Amino acid sequence: MNGGPARFLPPLQWLRGYGGATLASDLLAAVIVTIMLIPQSLAYALLAGLPPEMGLYASILPLIAYALFGTSRTLSVGPVAVASLMTATAVGKVAEAGTADYASAAVAMALMSGLMLAAMGLLRFGALANLLSHPVVSGFITASGIIIALSQLRHILGIEAHGETLLDLGHSLLAHVAAFNSLTLATGMAALLFLFWVRRGLAPLLTRAGLPAATAGMVAKAGPVLIIVLTTLASYLGGFEAQDVAVVGTVPSGLPAFSTPVFDAELWSELAVSALLVSIIGFVESVSVGRTLAAKRRQTIDANQELLALGAANIASGVSSGFPVTGGFSRSVVNFDAGAETQLASVFTAAGIALAALFLTPVLYFLPQATLAATIIVAVTSLIDWGTVRLAWRYSRSDFIAVTATIVVTLALGVELGVLAGIIASIALHLHKTSRPHIAVVGTVPGTEHYRNVERHEVVTYPGIVSIRVDESLYFVNAAYLESAIYAIVAARPEVQHVVLQCAAVNEIDLSALEALENIDHRLRERGMQLHLSEVKGPVMDGLKRTDFLEHLSGDVFLSHHQAVEALRDRQD
Amino acid sequence: MNGGPARFLPPLQWLRGYGGATLASDLLAAVIVTIMLIPQSLAYALLAGLPPEMGLYASILPLIAYALFGTSRTLSVGPVAVASLMTATAVGKVAEAGTADYASAAVAMALMSGLMLAAMGLLRFGALANLLSHPVVSGFITASGIIIALSQLRHILGIEAHGETLLDLGHSLLAHVAAFNSLTLATGMAALLFLFWVRRGLAPLLTRAGLPAATAGMVAKAGPVLIIVLTTLASYLGGFEAQDVAVVGTVPSGLPAFSTPVFDAELWSELAVSALLVSIIGFVESVSVGRTLAAKRRQTIDANQELLALGAANIASGVSSGFPVTGGFSRSVVNFDAGAETQLASVFTAAGIALAALFLTPVLYFLPQATLAATIIVAVTSLIDWGTVRLAWRYSRSDFIAVTATIVVTLALGVELGVLAGIIASIALHLHKTSRPHIAVVGTVPGTEHYRNVERHEVVTYPGIVSIRVDESLYFVNAAYLESAIYAIVAARPEVQHVVLQCAAVNEIDLSALEALENIDHRLRERGMQLHLSEVKGPVMDGLKRTDFLEHLSGDVFLSHHQAVEALRDRQD
Repeated sequence: MNGGPARFLPPLQWLRGYGGATLASDLLAAVIVTIMLIPQSLAYALLAGLPPEMGLYASILPLIAYALFGTSRTLSVGPVAVASLMTATAVGKVAEAGTADYASAAVAMALMSGLMLAAMGLLRFGALANLLSHPVVSGFITASGIIIALSQLRHILGIEAHGETLLDLGHSLLAHVAAFNSLTLATGMAALLFLFWVRRGLAPLLTRAGLPAATAGMVAKAGPVLIIVLTTLASYLGGFEAQDVAVVGTVPSGLPAFSTPVFDAELWSELAVSALLVSIIGFVESVSVGRTLAAKRRQTIDANQELLALGAANIASGVSSGFPVTGGFSRSVVNFDAGAETQLASVFTAAGIALAALFLTPVLYFLPQATLAATIIVAVTSLIDWGTVRLAWRYSRSDFIAVTATIVVTLALGVELGVLAGIIASIALHLHKTSRPHIAVVGTVPGTEHYRNVERHEVVTYPGIVSIRVDESLYFVNAAYLESAIYAIVAARPEVQHVVLQCAAVNEIDLSALEALENIDHRLRERGMQLHLSEVKGPVMDGLKRTDFLEHLSGDVFLSHHQAVEALRDRQD
Repeated sequence: MNGGPARFLPPLQWLRGYGGATLASDLLAAVIVTIMLIPQSLAYALLAGLPPEMGLYASILPLIAYALFGTSRTLSVGPVAVASLMTATAVGKVAEAGTADYASAAVAMALMSGLMLAAMGLLRFGALANLLSHPVVSGFITASGIIIALSQLRHILGIEAHGETLLDLGHSLLAHVAAFNSLTLATGMAALLFLFWVRRGLAPLLTRAGLPAATAGMVAKAGPVLIIVLTTLASYLGGFEAQDVAVVGTVPSGLPAFSTPVFDAELWSELAVSALLVSIIGFVESVSVGRTLAAKRRQTIDANQELLALGAANIASGVSSGFPVTGGFSRSVVNFDAGAETQLASVFTAAGIALAALFLTPVLYFLPQATLAATIIVAVTSLIDWGTVRLAWRYSRSDFIAVTATIVVTLALGVELGVLAGIIASIALHLHKTSRPHIAVVGTVPGTEHYRNVERHEVVTYPGIVSIRVDESLYFVNAAYLESAIYAIVAARPEVQHVVLQCAAVNEIDLSALEALENIDHRLRERGMQLHLSEVKGPVMDGLKRTDFLEHLSGDVFLSHHQAVEALRDRQD
């Protein structure tokens, strides 16, 4: 990143030298993204339990705010599936779906989330994104995708069914399934089948028909628009509404009014934790999309500036009757593939959505909700990713436990506890792993200066000397374990006079571990033994020198482990 | 530890071969500890805001329960200062001090804490003690000691003053100080001065008078008993009660009645977090005392069995009208120094306290509360330890931040938030440290096979090869940092063709870090470079082999870093 104003206003970087060719690329991308975003915005508003126009509103100002502050040139922000589900979960706790209170709580949540993100950006908390490991994020999104898909089944069936967990949702669906509406179901199933076919079969068909692969892919992405036009026409001509098929209904025309949400201390405190969680998840998702796209064009993303930009986007959403937004994967990929070069593409997209909000809303009246539900289901099935679970199973027990815990808790207890479970599981497993470090007794590989585990290799050892390699930094979590492990090793070798700790893998010794080393030294000395250290790293040694540990140490510190063993061999009785 | 029944009932180990000499030692220690415990039990009941007899009750059954299950032979459990303060804080939130509800909430808290500890023991959560680093525990106890000492000033002054934080307490003391009672203050100050003199001056005096040092120390420990006898006599003869000096008053004679506290869901849920915190702190304190004493006699402590034993002690306290107990430092040291050999000493002590509860309570009537407050103040001043803060300041910034945060939060916001702040600060700082690992570009020390930091040493490097040493395990918290650090190193060296990661200090590569390595490899390959690894540890290599990472890796894996550089030198263009 450059310093100066360009650091806080990235457009200053890319506007310089902005020319006709780039403008054309950005305009074309904007047209394609706008066409894709109109149904997506309506669908995610439906998923969040909000009126459809709020989906459009959340796709206007936030895009412009992100364009001003964001470091990704191609990220497209707006309503996304997981954040919309989390909004529904949070707002559903404080207000009844469909009421004005429900909508204004969602607006307040966008504003709170924006303020939190901006504050974290100013405090340079970008590293926060690293608290969620990749498997945990992937597991969380998989589980959320399942819950989202299930929650949309009610629109496909034309029934009432609610719930935030797998069990509640399944239960509610089974209880009401008998009341399904045949025409709604037919519409929903037709849309689903069409969309799955478009995704799997249309692009290859078009390619075989002679279209370039990129164009074929782009046309296939427009599938949702086609099915929306078709089912809206069918609904209008067939009088679906009179046959109890839920349609989008009246969407007010016009742009969102600017409004500062009223500050309601009780409401804000009830929503605070939820707003924080949606902020963190949104940020992690957005940065991960941004990084993926930036890498393809050798650009970079600044995590702290991204916090500011997403904060600005959510504040913009909160003052223009929107709901929480973030950088979405599918919309950003379409934007990127359609050739967007700069965030001006997003500004043009915002203009396109604004035009839709002004002029297109009357024709949306007849659009069946089942069609929107079908577009959501098809979109989230691509989020479901069991590959990570399988990879974690093969690769490491603790990654597998973390991802499984996240999925199970998300499905069983809902999205908010799912995120928390993921963070806690990741950190707890890391601490658990480092709490019992690998500690090996090592010996000389004959004819070399190398030292290897006596249990794995044919090595030379001396009865009076025991060489111990600790494969972990020493800190409070493993300090007690270190003590007991060393006592056990020494107790099994009564003839030992010299204990040498090889510290090549010890990147830190904190105060608790220093105390443990002092205890070890004290106890070995009582039994007539000496404690030596070898291969202590520079920064660790600097720390030890600031204490009196080295003055009291019964033994010596050696630069290399081999030097230690050579010297001590001569000192044996 | 042995297996079999002796594992769960440690007395089976030491009862075998129990003889007359051991019995005599244990009996003598019990007499001394009983004399010390009578005033201490009353004082800590006062500190917890409970009637004095509850202090005695908490020193009978819990000792027997610990004797049955505990692995320390000399630990003495009962009411201790910090746990009593935490009990007062927690119970004060749900009931008015001095009411029956207040007392029964304290009893319920002992039972809850006991059940929690026993459950953690059965789940083998002994490693939990390691979540609190030594500096954090020390800082917490220092801050608690300050709050306890301040809270007792009101008894010395004979005024009403309350508060759980430094500010509230100080404010309340200043507001009421003018109403002090002269006779109370005189009694309290006399007791304080006497106790400080006993601690500092009596033992040396007795030694000079010809007493053995150990005996002199023991007699000095009996100082509180002497001042209690003296001030009780003065109070009786001088009619202190009529002059508005607060005295202990009527203490019911007799043993505690067995009673199962009524399960009150609301009360229990309100106290749950507090009970958990007092359990953790009590456990950490107790295990640390137990380990210190066990080390002196080359015995060992089993943390999981200690959880069970402390759980049993608190359950015993909860069913016999006591309050939360744990292993105390000063009482255990007296027990140890007085020659206790086994937990039978504690059983005899329990009998001694039971006799006191039966026959001694009438003479306690006139004991001034100011005397008890003075014994508390003198006891907690020995808990205050600024040495750890100074050491942390010199030794490491993050230990210093953790201990300072713990002290400041404990003083400013109270004990419960203080413990939480300590745990969170320790973990957060550890994650923060490992999130930006030390990454060095290394070169060959001329004439050797050693590689050192190019910025610290005169080393040989080759333009086409960059050797990078990462001094940390690679996991989700630092995966993103690793990527950007390596890109920055490579970007500064446009002539590089081979990037070699020296992994000698990498004790783990989790799935997130593996993904980062794949990204790095992919990006380097795009730019015509190769990524190599050297000195990958056995367990890490085993993990990598279970994935397809090594098949796709652009470069090779070398056993030693020197081999890598030798081989790649020949492959440069």
